[in-house]
Parts: sequence; structure tokens; C-alpha cells
Amino acid sequence: MRIIVQKFGGTSVGDEEARLKARDRVISAKKQGFDPVVVVSAMGRRPGPYATDSLLDLVRSKGLPMDARGLDLLASCGEVISCVVMAGYLKAAGYEAVPLTGAQAGIRTDAQFGDASIQGINTARLLDVLASGQIPVVAGFQGVTDDGEITTLGRGGSDTTATALGVALRAECVEIYTDVEGVMTVDPKIVPEARLISAITYFEVEELANNGAKVVHPRAVHIAQQGGIPVRVRSTFAESEGTFITDDVARRVITGIAHVDGLARIEAVYPNPAEPSRARVAILKAISTIGINVDFINVTPRAILFTVKDEFAKAVEEALRSEGFACHVMAECAKVSVVGAGMQEVPGVMARVVEALHRAGVHIMQTVDSEITISCLIDQASVAQAVRALYDEFDLGAPGM
Amino acid sequence: MRIIVQKFGGTSVGDEEARLKARDRVISAKKQGFDPVVVVSAMGRRPGPYATDSLLDLVRSKGLPMDARGLDLLASCGEVISCVVMAGYLKAAGYEAVPLTGAQAGIRTDAQFGDASIQGINTARLLDVLASGQIPVVAGFQGVTDDGEITTLGRGGSDTTATALGVALRAECVEIYTDVEGVMTVDPKIVPEARLISAITYFEVEELANNGAKVVHPRAVHIAQQGGIPVRVRSTFAESEGTFITDDVARRVITGIAHVDGLARIEAVYPNPAEPSRARVAILKAISTIGINVDFINVTPRAILFTVKDEFAKAVEEALRSEGFACHVMAECAKVSVVGAGMQEVPGVMARVVEALHRAGVHIMQTVDSEITISCLIDQASVAQAVRALYDEFDLGAPGM
Repeated sequence: MRIIVQKFGGTSVGDEEARLKARDRVISAKKQGFDPVVVVSAMGRRPGPYATDSLLDLVRSKGLPMDARGLDLLASCGEVISCVVMAGYLKAAGYEAVPLTGAQAGIRTDAQFGDASIQGINTARLLDVLASGQIPVVAGFQGVTDDGEITTLGRGGSDTTATALGVALRAECVEIYTDVEGVMTVDPKIVPEARLISAITYFEVEELANNGAKVVHPRAVHIAQQGGIPVRVRSTFAESEGTFITDDVARRVITGIAHVDGLARIEAVYPNPAEPSRARVAILKAISTIGINVDFINVTPRAILFTVKDEFAKAVEEALRSEGFACHVMAECAKVSVVGAGMQEVPGVMARVVEALHRAGVHIMQTVDSEITISCLIDQASVAQAVRALYDEFDLGAPGM
Repeated sequence: MRIIVQKFGGTSVGDEEARLKARDRVISAKKQGFDPVVVVSAMGRRPGPYATDSLLDLVRSKGLPMDARGLDLLASCGEVISCVVMAGYLKAAGYEAVPLTGAQAGIRTDAQFGDASIQGINTARLLDVLASGQIPVVAGFQGVTDDGEITTLGRGGSDTTATALGVALRAECVEIYTDVEGVMTVDPKIVPEARLISAITYFEVEELANNGAKVVHPRAVHIAQQGGIPVRVRSTFAESEGTFITDDVARRVITGIAHVDGLARIEAVYPNPAEPSRARVAILKAISTIGINVDFINVTPRAILFTVKDEFAKAVEEALRSEGFACHVMAECAKVSVVGAGMQEVPGVMARVVEALHRAGVHIMQTVDSEITISCLIDQASVAQAVRALYDEFDLGAPGM
């Protein structure tokens, strides 16, 4: 068998036209001799009644309390409905399709409701369906515990379903169909001539995704990398070849640029600069208690600086004030990152980033770098200049990306 | 434990106001010292997006083919969504509620998709939930096979879920909450002064339901009878005591009147009256092949007469014509039935029925009677006169029903 996993996101199953296009992608794979395993997200986006958020709003919008277990049960219906409908389209075209819940597809998870991790996949049923020439259409984003509890894998979870199935079934490839052509070198809203990246390493995609380029979920990419299954991100609607994710890619210094908008930088000041230790521990503890992501943490002699998403700034500020810490909040910040697997072998990349931004008149508040990523905290208002400057500096418009 | 099963139909969970009323019914039972097990139908009726028909329309309205297995998977989401929402209302009122799918509630069925039968109920999980003082809220109308396939129990299936759970849990009572006050002696649209039947036998309710009084599903009543669990049909919205269904009821000659509208009477004529045998077999076989319910079957020397629902008349006629049989279709017929557990012990009931209808100027085309039921086939236009005449004849307006 030549198994291929084809995952269709919300916009690819959100309306009749999209579903017909998605159907054609599956039929095309079948005609090329593949045995497709289809994975679908819930249909469309709010206000569509079967989108994940619309289902969750049935309790949330009325202020009804519901534990994570109940929310997972509710949300799981979105993908179940979607998989039956998608199977209907395939059947209407003359292909035998079998809709399957996550549980029926053998996806076993832990009981971390709302953010469950796949513990294993029992592929027996899927292999049976494939062996009989039928097309399994699996509800993404969900699984089941050994106790029969329905779980969801967290946001972006259908990508995870797809790559985990790809690894378990030793698929030739996992195709992630979406409403963009693939992974771009840079945000086309800022650089209209942005190019599609034709091939990229797993790690680079993970870093781009973690830094704001939301094309494919980093957890899903990580699973594919560990299993050594190539992933292709492509559009349901355009004829582009998309982006091929594999480790078999020539290393570039910089492969892509990502940015995260809407950050707030918070400065929590120690009450007594002569005694910083206790204050540091208290501040870091207070932040962790709130349970939100912080970034750009910088511990200085008189304060701790860090960033959070704008919408959480108020809660963080209140929590710190109630612990007795003075706070300064600088809203409208952003993070711009360059990612490239080759930067490790080339000296002076940080210097080029700093200089390019300086030339463009962009003020850098802070930098942070990891193995293959350099990020700069800047003004929200400077994002476009910064992205353009880095795009030019690293020649991302050159052919052959 | 004093277990009570409380089932809420579509209109009882169809909007905010109804759900609050339903919630109050559960809280009231809890306050009276009961341990309620809640069973819910899908929310409301079409065009509400989460009603059973709306979900099925996602494939049916687009002409997408789908096997019964897939339709069950799709339909099952309606009750799952409903049980989470209902649990949310209970939690908001301060009660710990646990939404459960049919599978999680331990309801095991055969694999007769679309009309599955309960094979057994594993009550362990439900008893655990009850023992911890929590309120299980079970998705009605569904179960799971030993292979993990999701099934539905057919129309009216949430009633069946409720009574089967009542029997399995040895409940004190199963309460079926609906949008009418209970089982009425006669259709109030025809006889406005119709009375609520305060107590009735299982068999009588089954017969009334089978003959057009659609208050509670006959299969559900049958299960309750076999398990010896009393059932109470009552309104979610009104303060009436409802109808108590049990075998501990004084037998009345006639307890209630039911009617089925919109029947077509079909006469399939033998091609050669001298050789009726082969024609009879061929006609009966042709009818059974179509797979619809027929009633009032009457085998005569020159033809077979029977009734079907109006909407099936054309299909039956075509099937018979294609087999070479001449057909006469008389549309706009109806069936009026009187039901009473005591009629067996009293002679002359049929005579009173015939005479009362004759006096009212109602032409009887055919009669059929069984143990506790007498049915007459009449003109649709005569239904109101017939029902009123029988109501008067058997004094169904008398107090103490």
C-alpha cells in the first residue's frame, strides 16, 4: 500500500465549493495510486454552527460552567459531523468512504482534556478499511482515553492527528491542505512579492510557527520529524506544489521571517533594589500562577521585564500590583524573528539583523536568540519596516528558495 | 439510592426557557431526595442547527449518499451536544453534572444502524457517578456496539434510552417530560374538553401510540412493562401530575381514542379472478419488498386491499403496476381507534362502535380489532365526527379517568 494522509482544515471543508475541491484532492491521490487517509477539521469558522468555537459557545456564551472533559465532548462533535459530510462527498463521487471518529480510528490519548497527547494509535481498523479499498475519513483533533473519555488534542490538533497517523501508518507523505499556498518566506501582507518556500526543515517550520507563522502546528511537525515522515503544506484551492517539509534540505542562513503582533511589555519593579532576590522569586511565581505564556524575560538589577499578549496585560498587572509590585506596561509591541537552519554555521548573523534594523530606523528593545532563530522586540508600528529590512538584508526574494 | 430517570424531549431542551424549566425539574427531584439520571434528546426541531433532522440534512439536503452507519454517527452528535449543554445548566445552578454519551453510559446495542436494539447496559459508570452525588446527563437515542460503532435506536429512541436505563438501574420511576400534559383521552384539537388520563396500563399506551397518539414511544413502554418500572408522562412546562403508566390500574372498557390521518387505501386487482393464488403471493411479496408499513390488509376473492401512508401510495402503485397488477388508489383515508384494557371482558363493544359511527353519519370502510383495540378505516373528512361520536358513546368526558 502507498498510504498518504490528507488533512483538510476548517476553511477547506467550510463550504460546498471548498468541500468539492477537497474531494478532488482525495480523488486525485487515489487516481495516482495512493491509498488516502483523510483527516478533517470542523466545518468552517464561527458563525457557522458546526465550527469548534460555535459549539463551545453553546455553553460559553451563556456563561455556563463546564469542565474541560465536557468541553472536549462538545467540541469533538464538530469533527465528527465534518467527517461524515466529507465522506458523503466522496461517496457521491463513487468512492467508498468510511467516516471514523478519533476513537474509531484508534487514536488513544492521555486524559489531559483540552490538550491531550496521543499515547498510541491502534491502526487495525484503518488498515482494514484501506485493505478493502475504501477511504477512511477521520475526525481530526480528537482521541479517546483507555477509559472511553473523548479528548481533544488542543488547537491545531487536526494537524497532529494527521502527522501522528502518518507516522503510525508509515505513510509516504502527510499533506496538510489549507487556504494558503504553503509556508512563505515572509508575511505577504507586508511584502507582496513574498515567495513560497518550496522545501524547509522540520525545525525551521517549528520555529517559524512558534514565532507567529501559523501555517502548520509545531507539535504536528515535531511528530512528523520524529517519525521521519515528510509533510507537504499546500493549498486546497491553488495548483501550487506547496511547501515540502523534510530534513533533506540544503541549509540556508535565513529561510523565513515571522512576526507576532500585539504584545505588551511589562516591567515589574523590585520594591527595594538592595534586596532583589526575594522580589525576583515572588514576581516569577506570580506570573507562573496566572498560567499564560511569557516571552523575552529579562531579569535586571532593579526589575524584571517580559512580554505577554496584549489581552493578558491587565490581568498580569493586577496580579503583580496585588502582590505589591509597581508595574509599567508598554503596549503595542511586536516580535520579529528570522529563522534559518544555516545560521549556526555562519558568523555575524545577529550583527546583520541589528544593523539592518538600525538602518531602517527600527528601535530594538531587546533580542533573544536560539539555535536557528533570532528574535527582536520592537514597536508594533515598526513591524512592516523591520520585516522589509530583514527581507532585503537576507535576500529572501532571490530565486531558488 | 432512590434513582429516578428524567427524560427531556426536543422541545424541552430546545431553547433557553425550556432548558431552565427542565433544569428545575431535575433540581426538584434532587431536593426531594431522588438521585436523578437525566436523558436528553437533541435540541429542538429543524431549522435549529443541532436538531436531528438538521444534522441529517447536512448530507440528505445535498443529495449525498450515506450509509446507515454514517447517518447514525452524524445524528448521534445532536444528543451529545444536548447533554453537554444541559449539564452546563445544572452546573450553573450549583449541581455537579456529568455529560455522558450513550457509549459512556454503558448502552450496548446490536449493529442494526438506524434502528438498533439495546443488548445490555453496563451500569458501572452511571452508578459511580450517582454514588459520588453527581447527576449523570445521558445522550439519548444512541448506543455503541461491541466493535465501537455508534448506533441510534430509531425515532423515539430517547424514550427507549430512558426506560431501558430505568430498568437497568431499578429506578423508582421513569419520567418522560414533553410539551403536552400527558396522555389524553382523545385529541384535544378535535375535542377541546379532552381530559388527561391520570393512570393507564402499559399495553393501552402502546396501542394508543401505535394508533396515532404519539406521546411516548411504544418500544420504550414495552421495555418499562417488561422491567416492571412505572413511567410517568408529564409536561416540562405545566404543573400537571401527568399520566402514570403502570399495570396497577382499574380496567376501563375504553380508555382513549387515537387516530391516524393521511392514509391511502390501495386495491390491487388479480389479473385473472379464477386464479387468485399466484396473484395474492405476488402482490404481498411486491408490497413487502418496498419495505413500508401496510395496515388493514384484506384479502378478497378478486383483489387485495390495504392502506399505506399517503406519501408512499405512488411508490406502491408503481411497484404493483410494474408487476402487472391493476391498482385503484383511494386517497384521504384515516384510521380511528378506541383502546381499552377492559373491552375484552365486556361484550358488544364493536357493536357500540359501529352504531355510534353510523349515527354520526360516518361511513366505515373496514374494521380491524385486536385484544384491546378496535380500529375503523374511514374518510379523512369524517375524522372529527367519528372521534366526537366515540368520545360521547364511551363517556370519555366523565370524571375519574
